[in-house]
Order: sequence, then C-alpha cells, then structure tokens
Amino acid sequence: MADADPSARTPGRTSEPRRLRDVPAWEAEADVIVVGLGAAGACAAIEAANTGASVLVLERASGGGGTTAVSDGMMYFGGGTALQRACGFEDSVEDMVGYLLASSGPEPDEERIRTYCEESAAHFDWLVEQGVPFKAEFYPERMLSPGEEGLTYSGNELVHPFRDLAKPAPRAHMPQKEGQAGAFLMQKLIARVESAGVEIRTDSLCESLVLDDGGRVAGVHAVVAGEARDYRARHGVILCAGGFINDRAMVKQYAPELRRARFKAATEGDDGRGIRMGIGAGGAAIRMHMGSVTLPFYPPKSLMRGIFVNRSAQRFMPEDVYQGRAGEIALLKQDGRVWLVLDDECFERPVFAGGEIHAGETLAELEQEIGFPAGALQSTVALYNEHAARGEDPVFHKSAEYVKPLVTPPFGAIDLSWDKAIYAAFTLGGLATNVRAEVLDADGAVVPGLYAAGRTAASISSPGYSSGTSIGEATLFGRIAGRNAARA
Amino acid sequence: MADADPSARTPGRTSEPRRLRDVPAWEAEADVIVVGLGAAGACAAIEAANTGASVLVLERASGGGGTTAVSDGMMYFGGGTALQRACGFEDSVEDMVGYLLASSGPEPDEERIRTYCEESAAHFDWLVEQGVPFKAEFYPERMLSPGEEGLTYSGNELVHPFRDLAKPAPRAHMPQKEGQAGAFLMQKLIARVESAGVEIRTDSLCESLVLDDGGRVAGVHAVVAGEARDYRARHGVILCAGGFINDRAMVKQYAPELRRARFKAATEGDDGRGIRMGIGAGGAAIRMHMGSVTLPFYPPKSLMRGIFVNRSAQRFMPEDVYQGRAGEIALLKQDGRVWLVLDDECFERPVFAGGEIHAGETLAELEQEIGFPAGALQSTVALYNEHAARGEDPVFHKSAEYVKPLVTPPFGAIDLSWDKAIYAAFTLGGLATNVRAEVLDADGAVVPGLYAAGRTAASISSPGYSSGTSIGEATLFGRIAGRNAARA
Repeated sequence: MADADPSARTPGRTSEPRRLRDVPAWEAEADVIVVGLGAAGACAAIEAANTGASVLVLERASGGGGTTAVSDGMMYFGGGTALQRACGFEDSVEDMVGYLLASSGPEPDEERIRTYCEESAAHFDWLVEQGVPFKAEFYPERMLSPGEEGLTYSGNELVHPFRDLAKPAPRAHMPQKEGQAGAFLMQKLIARVESAGVEIRTDSLCESLVLDDGGRVAGVHAVVAGEARDYRARHGVILCAGGFINDRAMVKQYAPELRRARFKAATEGDDGRGIRMGIGAGGAAIRMHMGSVTLPFYPPKSLMRGIFVNRSAQRFMPEDVYQGRAGEIALLKQDGRVWLVLDDECFERPVFAGGEIHAGETLAELEQEIGFPAGALQSTVALYNEHAARGEDPVFHKSAEYVKPLVTPPFGAIDLSWDKAIYAAFTLGGLATNVRAEVLDADGAVVPGLYAAGRTAASISSPGYSSGTSIGEATLFGRIAGRNAARA
Repeated sequence: MADADPSARTPGRTSEPRRLRDVPAWEAEADVIVVGLGAAGACAAIEAANTGASVLVLERASGGGGTTAVSDGMMYFGGGTALQRACGFEDSVEDMVGYLLASSGPEPDEERIRTYCEESAAHFDWLVEQGVPFKAEFYPERMLSPGEEGLTYSGNELVHPFRDLAKPAPRAHMPQKEGQAGAFLMQKLIARVESAGVEIRTDSLCESLVLDDGGRVAGVHAVVAGEARDYRARHGVILCAGGFINDRAMVKQYAPELRRARFKAATEGDDGRGIRMGIGAGGAAIRMHMGSVTLPFYPPKSLMRGIFVNRSAQRFMPEDVYQGRAGEIALLKQDGRVWLVLDDECFERPVFAGGEIHAGETLAELEQEIGFPAGALQSTVALYNEHAARGEDPVFHKSAEYVKPLVTPPFGAIDLSWDKAIYAAFTLGGLATNVRAEVLDADGAVVPGLYAAGRTAASISSPGYSSGTSIGEATLFGRIAGRNAARA
C-alpha cells in the first residue's frame, strides 16, 4: 500500500554528540536550554525561569505549540483535583495509582506512576494559576465533547477488569474551549513562557548535544538558517522534542507494527530527533515498540451493542473498551483485522475515515460476504446471543447496558481493518528518565546535565494508554525537569 | 509469584565509555579484540585470525562455550546446502528468503535476511571445514532428535500460511552428536580458535569500551581478578557477549512480557553487558521487546490433534505451529493463558515441566472444571468438530493429518498458562548492525571500530523465531565481523 509517511529524514547526524572543544564560539548562553516548545517545553521553561534560572528555548518550527497544539488538549489528572471535587467526584491518589498500575501492562514503572498521581492535584492548580481555565462541568458521553465541559472519562476506569480493581473516577481534564482545545492550551502556556522572561528562538533546529570531556551535557548544537550554531547551557539541557512516529527509519527499527496506523497524531517535528540526541549523549531509549493507537472512530452507544470480531470471526475484547486501548489491542494483538458486527436494531452509520460496510439478510450471508470461514461468525454470535438473552457477557464482561442479542435482520459489519480504515497513532517509547526527569543511561545512571519530558521520554502508559496522560506527563515532568535543571 | 531471576546486576557501569586518555597502560594489545567466546565469538576469532589479524578473546567465564554450549546446537541454513542435497531436498536462496521475510513480522530487515540466505550454503561448508561433522540423514519428527541425524524442520515452513508462500525445505542443521549438540559444536569451534593462534583470556569480565577523542572504539576496559585492565584493539572490537534475558532491570525496561517465561535459555553471562557496552559507545539497541519463547513442551503428533484455547476458550493458532512461534503467540499475544484441550482418543500425558491436567466426562464438565464461561468451550469445540468431520480446518488451517473431531470422552485439558508451566525464553533484540556486522548508531551511521554478532546484535527473527537462526546468525555474522575487523 501507499506509504503516506514523510520518509526522508531531516539531514544531519543527531546521535553523534559534539565535543566541547570543537565548539568555535557560543551563539548564546543560558542556565537552562529547553529543546522544543510544546507542552513539556513550555512548562519546563516557565518553571526553570520561576526557579531563578535564565532560560533559552530553541524551537525548530516558526512558532511554539508542538503536537499538543494539534491535539484535544486533554490532561489525565486525579487524586482529588479541584475540578473533580467541583464536579462532585471523589478520587484518591491510591485509586489513581491502582488504576494506572493495573492498566499499564506488565512491569509498570511504579515510582513514576506514583509521582504522577501524588503531584497531580497540585499540578492541576498550577495550570490554573498559569491562566488555563477549566469549566466545572462533567461530560458524561464516551467521546470528545464539542462543548466547554471540563471533566470526562478518557480511559477504562469503568470497563472490566479495571472497574473492579480501583474505584473509578473521571480524570480527563479539558481546558474551557469548544472543540479541540490543544491550541488554546498552548496559547495560554506560551504567554506565560514569554511573561516569565524566557528567550524563545524559533526556526532553530537542534541537531546534537555538546558534551564536555567528562561526558556532561554542556550545550546544544543547532542549525539556524543553514548555519551551524552552538548554545551553552550552564546548568542543563531539557529535551522536549516530541516522539518519533514521523521518522520512517525509527518506526521500522523500533515499532514496526505502528506503521499500520496511517494517521500520525503528531507534527512533522515528531521525527525522533530529541530521542536520538539523548541516545547520542548516552541515554537509554526504552519501550520503544509501544504506541498509543486509536480506533478509526469512537463507537457511539448504539454501536457498542454490536461486537468486534477478528479475522477468525471471534470476539476479542469488551466492546465498551476505551478507544485507545481498543486500537492498541486491535492493531498490535489482532494483526489489525477487525470488524464491528451489528444487527438492524443497533446499526448506525458512523462518521469515520475510510472503511467498508458489509450487509446480509442472515448471519450466514454476512459471513460469506465478508469471507469468514463457514459457520465461524454464526457460532460467535450464537454464544454471544445465548448470554446476552440473560443480559450477561461472561466471556468479555461488556457492561450490561450495551449487552443485547443480535437478532434483527439485516445484519451489518463495519470493516475496521488497518488497510481499510484509518487508525491514529503516536509513540510512547523514549528516553529512560527518573522521577526527577533526569535522563538515565543503560545502567540506570544519570547522564549529567540532561533532562527529558513529553514524548521524548518513555511514558508511564506502555502499554494501556488512557487519553490525557501524554499532556499530563508532559506538563508535570516538564515542570519537574525545569525546576531540577535550574537548581543543578 | 516468586522471581527466579538472578536479579542483582554485576556491579560496574558498562554503558559509560572509558576515555582513551584515562587508560594508564595497556595490559595487552591485538589487532582485533573479541568479547565473549560463544558461537559468534569463536567464529569471529577464527575468521579474523585467518584474515591475518592478531586476535585476543576476552571471556568472562572460566571457559568458552556461551549459551550455544547449553543449547541443542541447531543452525538454520538453506538455499541448497550440501547437507540438504545429501538428504535429497531441494532448496533455493529465494525460497529461504521468501520464508524468512514472510515469517519475521512486519518490516523485516530484508538486507540482513538476504545476506544470511545468500551466504548460507557456503557458510555451512566452512563449518564442515572447521571440523564440525553433520550426518546426511533427515529426521522427520517434529521435535529434537535424540540421535545423530543432521537435518530437520525447525520452523513453520510446512504450516499455514507459510507453506503457501515459499516452497518448504528442512533447514535445521544439527552437528552429528547424540542429544544436545551445542557443547560438542563449541568444542570443535574452540579447538579451531586455539589452532588459529588466537589468544584466549578467560575470567576476564569486560566492563566498557575505550573510546578515543574522535569517538572511535580503541579498546576494552575489563576487570580481571578484581583488578582493572585495559586492552588495546588496533583495528576493532567485536561484541559477542550474548543477550540480556538474565538482567532483571533490562527485561523490565525493554521486554517486560518476557518475564513470564520462567526458564531462561541462557547462561548467567546473558546479562546484557555487551549490549550496554555498545549503547555506551553510541550504538542503537533495537527491537529490544522481542524474544524467542518456546512452549513448555513440543506437542507430539497425538496431542496436535487437540486444540489450543485461550482464557475465553477460543482457538488462536493452528496446533501444528512450530513451538517457537507457538510460545511467542501464547505468551505475547494471548497474555500467557493457554490450555491444550483433548479427547480420550488423542490424550497422552506429555513430559513437561509444571502444569496441571483437568478432566471431565463431558465438555460442559471440563469447561466448568477449568472455569471457562458457560458454553464457551462447547461452542469452540462444536465449530471445530463441524469442520473436522469434513477433515477441514478453515479457521486456522491446521494440516489435515492432525484434524479430527474431539468427540470421545473423557475430555482433558493441559494447563499451559505461564504461571503453571515453564516457558523458555531468550532475547532477540540487541545492537543495530549492518550486513558487515558493524554497529550502527541511532542515525544508522557506523560506530567506528565496533562490531557485534550473536545475540548482542538484533536478530533477523523479530518476531517469528525459527530455531537455529540464533546460532546460524551468530556463526555467520561472527565470521563477517571477524573478517571486516581484521581488514579495517
């Protein structure tokens, strides 16, 4: 199939560090240099400046914003934030920790998750102080609100098995702005960066880190208007340069299955440059195979009464699973072959990109039309219907409200296979960091003078993405990086 | 559950390179230094010496052998080797390439696979010249021969869908030795290392690479009897130090699902040290999440007439799939919950480690006994039996010889879940190398003076392991590394 990726890598070696003695002259100096002005970079810059450091931000694009500016601006916070309380929801740090530990796959990074949860409520207050407004209104639907509501569910808190492992609470915090709120969020944060006295230089493409003879990060090497430039960082460099979904070579080497997602939830800046700069300075890149993958559409309630099946016409997950987890399961565990099977009672033509719809007067006809093995879909639906007639789903534990027998002809199936419909993805792997946002090498030792946040750092959510953890982590660990680099 | 891993990492930072100017004196010098005396290291040393270089091998254990010495010694070769022809089998480079490309998951490394296949027949001849004997006899069973036969199938060449994508041929080449032939293979290779005039120093634990000011690898820093020692490599260093399955911290960070495999097909030397040394010198570690995972036992023909089911009592793969691929699917794609369901006609008590056996007079009873949702197993078996009655398996395409209805009570199920039975695993991720066995950095540029082979380098088989590719790659790319380092 056609490859929509921008496949050419921006020229220049990024993973070979530049030696201090090869620097002819410094173009500029600062206590702290921040690479990239997305959510992580903005919060790092604000906090470093507020901690008393002089701060220089280098941004490759002509303006700040990064991938957050093209996102919905959702942030996953909890443990009893002011917004949760204002909307009438109780939450605790332990419930948030419990949910994230349970939903983040084997061997989650417990220390990072715990820090994220413990700092969450105070960090939300800080964002409000930066001028980001949130409306104290809960949005009960299971898709992005077109309105200004501030709080919703964005994970699998209410879904089996997580609903039984930790007390559910809505944790997606959304800035008060109709529609996609990411650009609005970045506008507020960048205004604070500017008012904090941070120097921002745009159109400055960072290429590599400058290391002194002891292996300490001493600055950044960049290309500005075709000219090589070096910038000295007296205390530290913070890499906030995004993920790598738009670097064809890195995706092939590290996360080949993510190629199946044809929409990149990213900007062209997400070419892995920040991660490669960090690797070149001795940082370890971990969990690089993981990504967040969303379904081509988020099934409205009607469609959740249907069933997802794989190429063997088997069900494989509860249909009310959150779209992030659903996409991950479909694309990474089921080889990207997925259909949503419906009867006439729950059929609804969804708005989604690409895709084909099959129909049949009987299940046998539908089965044949799709090309499933004879009897396979009929067998799956028969078992599902047998349980659904009692209002139960003992196999996948879909919530009772979406369980109903599929019995009313005609029957339909929406083809959500990766080459028919468009999945959206971004990467979750990146540089290993500790809870101080310091970059770690392959032995777990700190790379002196180097910090990372945002998608340049490995996520807590790998696997098991709940929406909002990316900007949540970016803003929190960006701040932590800024504070620690300023004090270094 | 109890953690059987040796969790303590051998002390000493390996990923921080040592600077040339910090080396007080060289303990020894050679044109080429080889780190590790397993299959890759032995072949690298022989070839480097035969190319005219002086060669020093540093081995952490008290003798050579590595993981190959505790393996079955199987090597995956093809394209028409002398042994294939002597056993009456035709094979071609294109069929071997076709099979490996199809079975190695999305985005296989085509250039490396092609080199492996093109060099395969001549490389087999070279091994014979080194004194490794192979008996020209084909072993037709689907498990390891207890005898001396030289050739067998060790992958999914005969299994759907691969049998239709490339002409099958047996490609597992086994040294002529009863039982596990790995130690025998290493004995032959090490004898050649010695007769080639290579210097071997055992009990020498390499810690890090020595880099000159230009970033070129200039030697190795090691610890010998508690003392720091530096060794100069005039032309290059070849890392052949195994994988990382025995490093708890690395498995957690890079390949957390492999923790489910309780048996490590490895020695204690497989602690990732070689990979970390390479990362420290600027090398990129890729596909680090992948591993080879084998089922707790290789089902004899009788048991292949049963069906594997997951926690939802669904089938998920053809039961005649090769044990390597089966283990990978079971552990990585099905969350490690797997049962083999049988009727009385095909039941046989297998020899395997751990595990429980459930039984029932009816499928309903068996279903309840295991704890499957009511009707789930009955539904799966009914569909399977309906097709099997016609000798077909249109859902998973098991070979017709193993297809039969499961109808004769009592029924049984062998619990092969990861916490009940013992899966064996080793890692397949490692340093990125090109077909010259040179280590590459995150930009794909060569790290000067550094080579890698064996499980320290990322495998062609990730995912989709066919047994024998590890020692096959180790011996071939070890040789290629030796030749290129000697000529550098």
